[in-house]
Amino acid sequence: MKAHVYVTLKRTVLDAQGKTVADALRRMEYKGVADVRQGKYFLLTLEDGLSETAAHTEIERIASEVLTNPVIEEFTFRLEV
Amino acid sequence: MKAHVYVTLKRTVLDAQGKTVADALRRMEYKGVADVRQGKYFLLTLEDGLSETAAHTEIERIASEVLTNPVIEEFTFRLEV
Repeated sequence: MKAHVYVTLKRTVLDAQGKTVADALRRMEYKGVADVRQGKYFLLTLEDGLSETAAHTEIERIASEVLTNPVIEEFTFRLEV
Repeated sequence: MKAHVYVTLKRTVLDAQGKTVADALRRMEYKGVADVRQGKYFLLTLEDGLSETAAHTEIERIASEVLTNPVIEEFTFRLEV
């Protein structure tokens, strides 16, 4: 089983990196991009024998306690069973 | 329409950040994590009026030419219509 975790800045936080990428795309004349937000992506490979429920609970804990700065970041994740 | 782009190190490249996170999770006694790979996540909001085909082509170009270092990184993406 694998867990895909996506950590992004909260909407209330200025995404300077995302804005820089968006400006660069415009300057380089790439078409059709209105906005860019940049974050972190984690791919966790889980050990065999972990139930889906246990995995969900553990990944929720890991994402909120280790992978995310709760003051400025939020996360979503999905399990790949 | 939105595009979710995931940029990760190629399998042949040592993922030092991912390894550091994995070691930390073990030390902090989180259970069931065999491996961690860390990458970048981009959420691109596309302008209205772009066809799905045109969006696919443009995102492929942007991801390969701007968001990814082809020597050490690879990418996947999905469109959210």
